[in-house]
Order: sequence, then C-alpha cells, then structure tokens
Amino acid sequence: MKDSMKTNAAGRDVLTEINGQPATPYQGVGKYKPEGRKTAPPLSTCADYPDDGNKVVADLKTALQKAGLRDGMTISSHHHFRNGDLVANNIFDAAAELGVKDLRWFPSASFPCHEPLIRHLDSGVIHHIEGSMNGPLGAYASAGKMRGLGVLRSHGGRYQAIQDGEVHVDIAVIAAPTADPFGNCNGVNGPSACGGLGFALADSQYADNVIVVTDNLVPFPCVPWQIMGNHVDSVVVVDKVGEPEKIVSGTTNITKSPDRLLIAELTARFVEAAGILRDGFSFQAGAGGTSLAFAIFLRDMMRAQGIKARFVRGGSTRYLVDMLEEGLTDYILDGQTFDLAGVESMRDNPHHIHTNPFVSYNYHNKGNIASMLDVVVLGATEVDVKFNANVVTHSDGRLLHGIGGWQNCLFSKCTILPIPSFRDRIPVIVEDVTTLCGPGELIDVIVTERGIAINPLRQDLIDATKNSGLPVRPIEAIKEEVESICGGRPDSPEFQDRIIAAIKWVDGTVIDVVRKVATG
Amino acid sequence: MKDSMKTNAAGRDVLTEINGQPATPYQGVGKYKPEGRKTAPPLSTCADYPDDGNKVVADLKTALQKAGLRDGMTISSHHHFRNGDLVANNIFDAAAELGVKDLRWFPSASFPCHEPLIRHLDSGVIHHIEGSMNGPLGAYASAGKMRGLGVLRSHGGRYQAIQDGEVHVDIAVIAAPTADPFGNCNGVNGPSACGGLGFALADSQYADNVIVVTDNLVPFPCVPWQIMGNHVDSVVVVDKVGEPEKIVSGTTNITKSPDRLLIAELTARFVEAAGILRDGFSFQAGAGGTSLAFAIFLRDMMRAQGIKARFVRGGSTRYLVDMLEEGLTDYILDGQTFDLAGVESMRDNPHHIHTNPFVSYNYHNKGNIASMLDVVVLGATEVDVKFNANVVTHSDGRLLHGIGGWQNCLFSKCTILPIPSFRDRIPVIVEDVTTLCGPGELIDVIVTERGIAINPLRQDLIDATKNSGLPVRPIEAIKEEVESICGGRPDSPEFQDRIIAAIKWVDGTVIDVVRKVATG
Repeated sequence: MKDSMKTNAAGRDVLTEINGQPATPYQGVGKYKPEGRKTAPPLSTCADYPDDGNKVVADLKTALQKAGLRDGMTISSHHHFRNGDLVANNIFDAAAELGVKDLRWFPSASFPCHEPLIRHLDSGVIHHIEGSMNGPLGAYASAGKMRGLGVLRSHGGRYQAIQDGEVHVDIAVIAAPTADPFGNCNGVNGPSACGGLGFALADSQYADNVIVVTDNLVPFPCVPWQIMGNHVDSVVVVDKVGEPEKIVSGTTNITKSPDRLLIAELTARFVEAAGILRDGFSFQAGAGGTSLAFAIFLRDMMRAQGIKARFVRGGSTRYLVDMLEEGLTDYILDGQTFDLAGVESMRDNPHHIHTNPFVSYNYHNKGNIASMLDVVVLGATEVDVKFNANVVTHSDGRLLHGIGGWQNCLFSKCTILPIPSFRDRIPVIVEDVTTLCGPGELIDVIVTERGIAINPLRQDLIDATKNSGLPVRPIEAIKEEVESICGGRPDSPEFQDRIIAAIKWVDGTVIDVVRKVATG
Repeated sequence: MKDSMKTNAAGRDVLTEINGQPATPYQGVGKYKPEGRKTAPPLSTCADYPDDGNKVVADLKTALQKAGLRDGMTISSHHHFRNGDLVANNIFDAAAELGVKDLRWFPSASFPCHEPLIRHLDSGVIHHIEGSMNGPLGAYASAGKMRGLGVLRSHGGRYQAIQDGEVHVDIAVIAAPTADPFGNCNGVNGPSACGGLGFALADSQYADNVIVVTDNLVPFPCVPWQIMGNHVDSVVVVDKVGEPEKIVSGTTNITKSPDRLLIAELTARFVEAAGILRDGFSFQAGAGGTSLAFAIFLRDMMRAQGIKARFVRGGSTRYLVDMLEEGLTDYILDGQTFDLAGVESMRDNPHHIHTNPFVSYNYHNKGNIASMLDVVVLGATEVDVKFNANVVTHSDGRLLHGIGGWQNCLFSKCTILPIPSFRDRIPVIVEDVTTLCGPGELIDVIVTERGIAINPLRQDLIDATKNSGLPVRPIEAIKEEVESICGGRPDSPEFQDRIIAAIKWVDGTVIDVVRKVATG
C-alpha cells in the first residue's frame, strides 16, 4: 500500500489525498463529525448589478468571460435534463474557443449525451470530472484516460461537499426551462420543462458566479423561483436547453419480467408483514422497473386496506402522481421528475412539493428527510454477505453508474434492495463487493427471486416477519444456490494498480476507490 | 465632536464604534463596497439530530438551555405577529428564571405589546435592543434608560447585517402558526395564522441555534416550509403564539380625511401623468390610510384604462387581494400580510407569493426586487428641502418608529412620499430633518395637500409632468407657505449630548444617530 493510502473503517484501502486536496478515510456511519463553519460565497452589492434587474448578456461565451473564466477553474452544471441536456457541451466548447485549460467539471451527473466532452478531456480543456459518469465518460475514466481522479458523490454528498467548502465552485451554469431577466428560474414551465431544479441549488447558493441559461425568458417575476435570481450574475438566452423527450428516464416502465415481478411482489409483502404499511407511513421507490412494480403492488395493498401514506418521495412518475390524485398519499416530496406527468403535477398540484438535496439528503445538516422515511426500495449492482452494496461498478469493474441519492436513502428506517440474484449468469450476491458504496449496517433487507435475506442486525424485522410465510433465508444460502446455478463464484474483475476514481461517503470521507480496468 | 465620531458623507456626525464594535460612516448611495465573504453558520451533522426528525422539547426554557443560553448572547425574534406577539416576552422571562444577564435582543421589530420587557431591561437580563422600537420601548431608549445603544436597521439592512456577520445571532426563536416536529413551519395555516415568516429567514439560516415555537403542531411535512426544518434545532409547543386580531395592522383602513384623500389622488394622478401607469408596470404602497387610498385611485385608473400590473408588492391587504383576484395584477409579491384576506390569499392563491428580505431588500446581494419597482409610495415623519427624509423620530425628537422596508424601497425607479405638509400645527417639510433615514437623492417626489415637489435631480419627471395641470411647486415654496400657516419654523427638539441609537443605512454604514431627549 502506498504512503498516500490508508485502510478505512470499512477495511478498504483509500487515498488520503485526492486531486491535490487532503481526504479523510471513512470512519463508520455517523462517526466523522465536521468542525468549524460552512463555507460562504463572496459578498456582493446591488450597486454592482443593474437596477432594472436585467442581467441578460449576449451569449454563454460572454457570460463565461464576464465570470472571469480562467485555467484551472471549477464549472458546475446539473442533470435535470438527464440524457437530453443541451447546455453542458456548449460550456466547454466555449471554454475551448476561449483557450482555457485544465477545468474541473463538477456536474450533478453526466450522461451518454456528454460523450462529445471526451475531446475536451483529450485536449486538456477539461482536466477531470467530479460527479457521476454514466456510460461513455465512465468507460473513459475506467480505461485510465482521464488525467485527474474522478470523485463520485451522492446527491446529498454533493451538497455537503459544496456547503463544507470541500469543492469550491467558481462558475455554476444552470440550464433552466423558464427564467426571467433577473435570473429567477424554474423547471416546471416552458417547452423544455423538466420539473425541478433542486440539484443546482447548492451551486446557486455557493458558487462565486452563477449563469442561468434558458430557452424561455419571461418577464420578472418568474414564479416559482426554484432558483433565486438574487444568486444569479448573468442570464443567457438560447434556442433550446434540453430535449424533453430525453429528459424522461428510459427506465420508467413497470417490469414485465416474471422474476422481477416476483421480487417486487415479495418486497411489497415484506413491507406489509413487517408492519410498515400503516396509516401515515412514508416510502420511497425509484423509477426502475422493479421499483415501479413494487409501488404498484403496494398501492393495491393500500387501496385494499384503506391505508393512506403521509408522503411518498419521488423521483416521480405518473404512478406516484396517480396515487396523489387518488388520495393515497397527502404529499409527494420530489427531487426529480421522471416523466411529464411528474412535471405537470409538480407545476399544478400544491401537494406535489419540489425538494432539493439540502432538505432531503445533506448529511451535514440538522437532520434531513431521508432518515424519516419508513421504507426505501433501492437497486444495486452487487451485494455481499455482509450486506454491503455496490451501485457504481459493473461485474467487469468498469465505472458505469453514479450514486444518485442511493447512499442518502440508506438512512431510512428500513432499506430494502430488491435485486435479481444473478444477471447474465453472473451472481449479484458476492463474497465482497467490488466497490463499496453503502455499508451493510444500513442495508436491512435483500429481496431476490430466490428468497429474502434480512440483515442479522435487524432482529426486529426478523421477529416481525417470522410467521409471515415469506421465504426468508440466510444471505449465504441464497449466495451458494446462485453460485451453483452460475457455475461457481464469479471471477473478480482484473484491475491495474492505478486508481481512477474515489467514492465518497455522505459525510465527505472516502469509503472506497475504483481502479483502472486491465482491459481498459 | 468626540474622537469616536466622524462626519459622514451626508454631513451627519456619527459614531465609529457601536456597542463595542467598529462602525463605518455612511459614504453615499452605492459607494461602500463590502469585501470578503458572507458569514456562515456552524457545520452540523445529522448524526447529532434524531433520525425520526422529532425535535420537540418540553418547553421554551428547556430549548434555551439546550441551545446553551448564557450571559451576553444575542437572541433574535420576528415581528410577523406585530402587536399580537405572545412569544418574545416569554423568552426573556425564561432567561430571567435561568439567571442569565446582558442579552442583546435582536427583533425584526418590537411593538407596544413588548412593554413588559422594560423590567428585564431595568434588571439587566436584556442589555439592549437592536431593532425597531415602536412606542414604549422607543420612549424608554429616548429617555436614555437603555444601557447599550439602539441600532435601527431596515428589513433589508437586518438581513445584510446577519449575512455579513455584523450581527451574530446565537439563538433565534421563531414563533410559527404551524410547524411539524422537524421544525418546518409556516405562517399561513393554524389558528394564529399571520401570513409569511420571511422576517425570520436570515435568523434561521445564520443563527447558531434555532428554536421554533408553535401552537399548531402537524405531522411532517408542514407545507409550505417557509422556514426549513433543516435549519432548526428544537421545537416547542405552546398554547398560543399570537393573537390574530392584533396581527392585523391598526392602519389598514382607507383615510377619510379630505386632505389625505386629496394627497392620495394627487399621487395617483402624478403616477399617471409621469407615464408610469402602463401595462406591465409595478408598484408598492404601504398599508397606511393614505397609501391605501392611493392604491384605490390607482386601481380605478387601471380599470378605466384597461391596464394590468405585472406585480404589486405587499404588505398585502384585502385591497391588493381584490386587485389580484380581479386580474389587475399578475402577482402579489408579499413580505408581510396586514389583514386576514392577505393571509388567506397567500395560503390559497399561487399568484400571491411569499417573499422575504433576502429576495426583496438585502442590498449586499446580486440585485433585489426593490430597485425593479416602477413606483413606490411611502410615508415620513419629516422631509427637508434637500428631499432628505426621516421616519424614526417625531418632531419632539423621540424615537418612536422603526425603519421597516422604507430605506430599501427608496431604490425604486420613482419614490413618492405623499405626506401632509403639517401635523398638529408642526410643519412636516423642514430645513433639515431631525434624523436622516433616507438621502434626498433617492426621494423623487413629495406630494402634499399644498402641491407637489419634484426632486430637481429628476428632470425626466419634471419634463413628463410639465403640462399635466398638476400643482407642481418648488419644495421651498411649499415649506414657506406651511411655515406662515404654522406661525414660523418649528423649534428644533432639545437633545442632550448622549447618543441613544444609531441609524444604519442599507449597506450597514451609519447614516445618523439619535440623541437622548432633554425632557426624557
């Protein structure tokens, strides 16, 4: 092990310096206590801004120049447009035209649509990316081609990193479906409506300079102001900020796979058997096919038993919207809309509440919503016998996914991972996860098509479901059965020594690292 | 002049040290540029807060103890309940019981209902008050009885002072008509509904410790969360936080005085003649009788000419609510509701927007709403021939009023003061204002029952209204006429040397001081 590495509380060897900054190894859940005060943006004065509130400038390049763009700066962007974003690539095209080098891109997530940025990584305009790298950019990093280290954070961890001063954002570029000349903006109106803009909140609050880019300029006031113009320096009007048809997640259809449907049904039955399904409860389920199927099974149980939730957390889809409209929940607390029904509901229904990572997920906070959830249903690429889970690397070791709100959600009162026991004949339940993203002590239940494993730490759940008739089994037993089906334990991916990314825990400490794949 | 004083850019001798802290003399409008970064609250971690989000503690005393209350601390509160507040007195009763001394009370404003605090000022529990002192507490300070100096700030200046670190709030106590156990709260619901809670925003964001006091606890989530529970440390439930019938301002009736009606009508006609009354315009008028009458005249003109405002700023009353509902404005942007119609509209009408001093008034910001207003109508206790105005002291020199949003509103495109030319046979237009609160360069028009005076700096307004038939006259001519009616120039109030309060400008500099009255 190198001098610059330490074994953290999870037994993983991690870096103590990342991209030239000191880094703290993971110390255990709730163990690391931050000291001092939050970071703070520069003081400004109205004397330096137009009295009439009109901050519109000619184009993005002008706005970047006005913001003082120079070598080595950090530029942030958000991913509410998901794979339909039309702004981020333009930022770095403009930076290239301006001859600027060595930028750090700090998106809340990147998608396949950002593949064109590889040329700016190759040419040196972008030094490295900190943020989820879904698809091609993740493959690029996994192949060891990125100069700096990738740093992956959860949505809450990203807010925490900005708030704590761990990441200083020089320039935030906020693509907005509707904005006014003052910079107030939202995602619920306009031809490119995408729902919320919460992922850009920290950027707007803490960046030295904030640029809003919109394709729908309205007279002041743009209401609601999900992002406040008082944080904004410049406004740029373009033809199109995003493609709504691609904003919608590709995964918002209920699964048709019989195995996945079984997993979803077992999950819902577990929630019922554990006594979680009661009036005033709350749940969060993602927009993946199995999660959606779970939500449908749960909905049917709620209907049958006359149970109403106090709130459900989105990512919202039309399924959650239907539940709200049917009166099965008082509120949707929503961080990200996954389809147009979600966008419209957030716009029109006062009980469909726009949230952001500060209120929902930031761990360096006086509490957040995540820990109040009665039950959360999440995915994983791998789970191990200690209930540790991985969401970022594939079985081949390549870094292909972001963390999203996944780590943050683990703090719910009951965290369930409904997962297939194998994928493409490769076991999903393993001896040790390739990359540790979530510590097993926070993961309560694994539901597979071959049975349900309850974390031994949760004797209460074991007791509650003892006589439920559900196929509860030790996780080792499920693992062994799957290995016999798949022809033995999976080969570990082949890695080279070189570390290509760090995985942060919700408190900013380093929980694991990712290495270059041998066949990169 | 003492060593500790300097003559500021307005020619006023002001303190360079206030309550032991250095103070900067006023340097002119937009001249003082702040440096460095905003202040920041302490970092916290969810590990130190209950996972289930329940922060309810037994009572206010317990919450204060938990917050580490000790001698010399600063405790803040808000004035959305106006003269019906039932919480602030209890804070200091509890502090007295705990034997704590020398506290600084930092309310957004105080009212006659806070007169009982005089015993805590006398006994030493409270060292001094920084904030508007309406009525008895102002008289107490004017008589030289308060140990520390009063410091008066505008609503925006109060936000600026907290944000800039000029005032460090140790403990914020936020009285809330509705809250959940996590601390999310609002003013639009519950038996004591008062409308918004925006005056407490800075306190919630920057105080070391935040206590929410409510008489209407609802299950999480309390929506809307005008104040976010993520900023809150403790929640206290009491029988009653405020008396709604006293929340309503005593001044929300249209004037019946023929002189005042004439002034209101002249003001509206001036706005029309100056070309301000056009589709998409914006205005702000207070809740005083003359301002309300002005709004009614304006409304009638808008109806007659088919003109619609883009937004009007509240303090809202049923008159503004009627305009919104009638379609005469797209939005009400509201900082403070003055009657129950305002409260209900803010609760139910998505075009009645809850604002706060950060978005509306904070001068150390990237712009704010105040400077975007086409016209603002405000009051004053005195105006002088240089168009300087006073809002805090009476003609007898006593400090009886707060600044409110008055200084902030002066930044509008056209600031009009409709005022009677004399009150109780004492001229209101004087040679030099007793206390300088607003520099003449920002005050554009004075409307009296004896004519309209336009600031010579506004040649555009002089030109626009030249052929309007309105009684436009030099301010000196109005002053002389009034003096002849009142039997000469008014006597200056008799002051002692001792300074009892400082008046801050919107940028935190000192624009004037107030001295002890001789007959105190």
